[in-house]
Amino acid sequence: MPSAAIIGSSGYSGQETLDRVLRHPQLEVVALGSDSLSGEPASALDVRLNGSLPPFVSNEEALAATADVIFLCLDNERAAGLEPPADAVIVDLSGAHRLRDADLYPAWYGFEHPRPGRLDSWSYALPELYPPAGRLIANPGCYATASLLALAPLVGAIETTGVVIDAKSGVSGAGRELKPSSHAGFVLENLSPYRVGRHQHTPEIAQALGFPVCFVPHLLPIRRGLLVTCYVQPGEAADLRGLLEDAYAASDLVRVLPEGVTPELARVQHTDGAELALFDDPATGHAVVVCALDNLGKGAAGQALQNANLALGLDETLGLRLAGVLV
Amino acid sequence: MPSAAIIGSSGYSGQETLDRVLRHPQLEVVALGSDSLSGEPASALDVRLNGSLPPFVSNEEALAATADVIFLCLDNERAAGLEPPADAVIVDLSGAHRLRDADLYPAWYGFEHPRPGRLDSWSYALPELYPPAGRLIANPGCYATASLLALAPLVGAIETTGVVIDAKSGVSGAGRELKPSSHAGFVLENLSPYRVGRHQHTPEIAQALGFPVCFVPHLLPIRRGLLVTCYVQPGEAADLRGLLEDAYAASDLVRVLPEGVTPELARVQHTDGAELALFDDPATGHAVVVCALDNLGKGAAGQALQNANLALGLDETLGLRLAGVLV
Amino acid sequence: MPSAAIIGSSGYSGQETLDRVLRHPQLEVVALGSDSLSGEPASALDVRLNGSLPPFVSNEEALAATADVIFLCLDNERAAGLEPPADAVIVDLSGAHRLRDADLYPAWYGFEHPRPGRLDSWSYALPELYPPAGRLIANPGCYATASLLALAPLVGAIETTGVVIDAKSGVSGAGRELKPSSHAGFVLENLSPYRVGRHQHTPEIAQALGFPVCFVPHLLPIRRGLLVTCYVQPGEAADLRGLLEDAYAASDLVRVLPEGVTPELARVQHTDGAELALFDDPATGHAVVVCALDNLGKGAAGQALQNANLALGLDETLGLRLAGVLV
Amino acid sequence: MPSAAIIGSSGYSGQETLDRVLRHPQLEVVALGSDSLSGEPASALDVRLNGSLPPFVSNEEALAATADVIFLCLDNERAAGLEPPADAVIVDLSGAHRLRDADLYPAWYGFEHPRPGRLDSWSYALPELYPPAGRLIANPGCYATASLLALAPLVGAIETTGVVIDAKSGVSGAGRELKPSSHAGFVLENLSPYRVGRHQHTPEIAQALGFPVCFVPHLLPIRRGLLVTCYVQPGEAADLRGLLEDAYAASDLVRVLPEGVTPELARVQHTDGAELALFDDPATGHAVVVCALDNLGKGAAGQALQNANLALGLDETLGLRLAGVLV
Repeated sequence: MPSAAIIGSSGYSGQETLDRVLRHPQLEVVALGSDSLSGEPASALDVRLNGSLPPFVSNEEALAATADVIFLCLDNERAAGLEPPADAVIVDLSGAHRLRDADLYPAWYGFEHPRPGRLDSWSYALPELYPPAGRLIANPGCYATASLLALAPLVGAIETTGVVIDAKSGVSGAGRELKPSSHAGFVLENLSPYRVGRHQHTPEIAQALGFPVCFVPHLLPIRRGLLVTCYVQPGEAADLRGLLEDAYAASDLVRVLPEGVTPELARVQHTDGAELALFDDPATGHAVVVCALDNLGKGAAGQALQNANLALGLDETLGLRLAGVLV
Repeated sequence: MPSAAIIGSSGYSGQETLDRVLRHPQLEVVALGSDSLSGEPASALDVRLNGSLPPFVSNEEALAATADVIFLCLDNERAAGLEPPADAVIVDLSGAHRLRDADLYPAWYGFEHPRPGRLDSWSYALPELYPPAGRLIANPGCYATASLLALAPLVGAIETTGVVIDAKSGVSGAGRELKPSSHAGFVLENLSPYRVGRHQHTPEIAQALGFPVCFVPHLLPIRRGLLVTCYVQPGEAADLRGLLEDAYAASDLVRVLPEGVTPELARVQHTDGAELALFDDPATGHAVVVCALDNLGKGAAGQALQNANLALGLDETLGLRLAGVLV
Repeated sequence: MPSAAIIGSSGYSGQETLDRVLRHPQLEVVALGSDSLSGEPASALDVRLNGSLPPFVSNEEALAATADVIFLCLDNERAAGLEPPADAVIVDLSGAHRLRDADLYPAWYGFEHPRPGRLDSWSYALPELYPPAGRLIANPGCYATASLLALAPLVGAIETTGVVIDAKSGVSGAGRELKPSSHAGFVLENLSPYRVGRHQHTPEIAQALGFPVCFVPHLLPIRRGLLVTCYVQPGEAADLRGLLEDAYAASDLVRVLPEGVTPELARVQHTDGAELALFDDPATGHAVVVCALDNLGKGAAGQALQNANLALGLDETLGLRLAGVLV
Repeated sequence: MPSAAIIGSSGYSGQETLDRVLRHPQLEVVALGSDSLSGEPASALDVRLNGSLPPFVSNEEALAATADVIFLCLDNERAAGLEPPADAVIVDLSGAHRLRDADLYPAWYGFEHPRPGRLDSWSYALPELYPPAGRLIANPGCYATASLLALAPLVGAIETTGVVIDAKSGVSGAGRELKPSSHAGFVLENLSPYRVGRHQHTPEIAQALGFPVCFVPHLLPIRRGLLVTCYVQPGEAADLRGLLEDAYAASDLVRVLPEGVTPELARVQHTDGAELALFDDPATGHAVVVCALDNLGKGAAGQALQNANLALGLDETLGLRLAGVLV
């Protein structure tokens, strides 16, 4: 059975990755890295974790453990500086290896990339659109995943200027770190845009689409879930619905909703799937494409497992949380 | 002291209008109309209302009461059919008299306007932009108020095509009526767009701006508050910030935030004010204008009182809820 | 493979039951009853349901379908009047067959029980405490499940007077029906007790414990999840923790938390498990027992499946939602 | 005009106190103390604050400013160590001077009281029950305020054993400090009890009532608002409703709801009032008394202003937020 190590396993994306590895019938946890919990039993992270798991070790030790797949759940700068072990499949959930142009890192991520020459060796992998190639996998950002699921199939059939992506995410997208903008006294019964025109997922989306977009995220007073509303101008005689339906016809995870059905977060929360819907705006001729997903699922850990499965030659959805019909 | 009657006083906008009339030092309630509560004491609506108020009467009786100002808090079709009493100032909080072109009503409101020839006699009044003229006042919609506060001062300095308004509102915007989309089991921990490209505030915004917009509203899992994120392309050398600051320099209710401050609903909830902020998007050259307000305050009852004050020659903010510095 | 029919499948408990039947590897849906959706495809209830399911039929037709297990997800009075088909296992999720004393129905449920003589033939089944006996199964109420998991193992070791149960539930506990108390404008950012001293789960709890309790439920501004805080006076030298740990040592679904760990809804939502914790109150000598579960999971549909599994001789947790370690 | 200084003005209770001082027609701010914001303009705390206010100074400087009333909005231990300036009215919003018995501080507050001999000089002031006496005022805790409003008038008419107080509070009760339990990812769509049997308001309630109580607080996923559900056993022929109504007949802030009306947080949020309701439990003979208030209003800053008004000989409700009839 392939073995897995999780580096940075005590953050939100680490914990969610662990959740899916534990559900996975063909992966075995060999190392749980966490600098803050090193030496503690797994239950120190969550009481639902028990004695069958190894105790936490430092992230360095976890990296050194011989694992077939390594999930990197670190902050961007830390992940960028790592020398990835040879042979293992590495899935990096951070943004450290998503941009091919190292020059973009200072402006969008706030640091000089320490290993700019190695960015080419990473594969930006969003399986339905860009399957992983090779063993070094840059797992897309939550906002980028939703935006690209909505827009990538339409490239060529829409105008490349004036594309607007208005995004909304639950607070878990900002991680477990304590900061004023994650304080419940700020978040509850509130809504606010943030990093307008400066969010680091913007160049990631532009890189994949091939043209710039105007991207504005908003913080929602919900725990998890993310929805993007994308505004585009279709080219003449474009069949946008056909393009979307074709793109995801074979997918177990991405559903194009029938006309008249409105996407909603409740149907994708706690799952690794996504919902897409297409609307027309008669007043301006715009098309509006909406994508809903769980920022910690398809937007992070679910997609990381999906990528790992593909890289390991396993069934794509093993360990993933498929949708039921919960209320 | 001028007298006031509220028609349809048991809905959300009616109750909020009553709240402000009761706070108003120079208005006296003479009639509370409600077909469902007719004959009941005011406390039947809310235990905080007491014996100093007249009991509810039918809406027809309330309309017939001689009042100096009448607030119409009815559904669109009902309000459209009313013959307004002579002499009184009438503030219609519904959409029945907002559109000058009667032909738009069937498509956007779902009914033929019963009094198309009279639409011209109503003044669409958003005081900071379009003060009331005459005694018949069409009070703007909540989404339209926010959108116009954000965009109207910029007309002439922005391109008139490609304008996108992504709007988000708390559930009280949908009224007290029971419907599946207002059920808490649907709303909580959820987000969904609705009436994409079909919302009735769309032509109201377009009429005031002079060009069409792509408008998409979303339902937020919050009680009250509304935020619009407007995407525009500035003309050459346009000073959008200067235009906004000039437009509201004299306003006690609309605040243009300094650069670097992000609008948030928490600062406008339970008030009759609004917040505006302007951002640039370096990737595409768009400007992003955000407006936050309380859908029941500046978006409904607060603006209705403001309009009534102006029409009656009273101080504009009497009875209104001005912002404190609540957490 | 055993066959299942769901009667009243378009309400919350019906939909959640369906969710679990679809996850169940050894149950097959043969009939979906819903009077409101009769004739519609399954997708009319939820877009995630697809063509592999039979269309809705009327509840009467669904009851007449030959199924090995029938889940009754009807309102109390309707369920009380049904003549259950012979042979099938019947799991009634309503309160119609929970009280052995028919005389209690008028006061607590508001109707005369139409089949008082048959109440004895139903088995009140909460598997960890009272496994199902026979094919007619009264599935416990959500509040009763939590209260009994907390208190039943302690009977004999606590005083039988002065027991207080303060309960809090998310809004889905009140069902999909539209009513003012489920309107999001009422629920959001709010909290209120309801039916104080009059809730119909009170006699159900008392019947199982053998003594009366003071039970007060509160409506929480959350979608799903239920927590009871139970206040009891321990007898001399009582080992309450030992009693709880013994009671659930063999359970896959009920977890007694270690000392120092606080129960929380987030760990049980969307699962069919429950969490228990025990605290002492030094000031008064009380013990405080807390139970958290998902009102639609262990509090309804999860337990219904668990009971059905036991009655059919299947593995107890088939089809159930077991906890992961989601954030 | 009397002058006011606020010490610790950048926390929640400090900001809310400032809100009310600014609304107060007869108080003038002379010093805003904040060690973290010292030297910054008032707008650094909140953009709604403007140039008419003095900039922040250190807490020490603010204490030294000659003010007629000083509001202490500090943490418990810091407030306990302060030497209060002579002459000024001091309202301490912390718990530093609430307990008369200094020996209770180590166990309940975690520190030795540094000035135990001075506790007697402070007046525990909850105006409707215990008006301030003297110029040193210990402002009650939020939970204690609600519990005492519910129970103090009943002392003598209820049994003094077995009293249970189940309390629920919004997250702002825990202050602006960053901690895991205030992270929105923990709070949202969640509920949990905390400090069971160990909360520091427990001895404060017991001291005022004269007997111990079993007190358990729970953290609600709401921004503000607090509700206590109190369980008591009435003595023979006790007229609890009469006692409550008599106690608050003259109050502008505390309302005893008529029979059949249920308290709810929505009616007291953003106000300085409180709601009380009384229910009987037929099954056990208990009485259930519920009190709802805003933890930052009547539970903190509103009551602080009320106490200050009384101590300064001003009208009791100046500056307070009285209830309207907002939805």
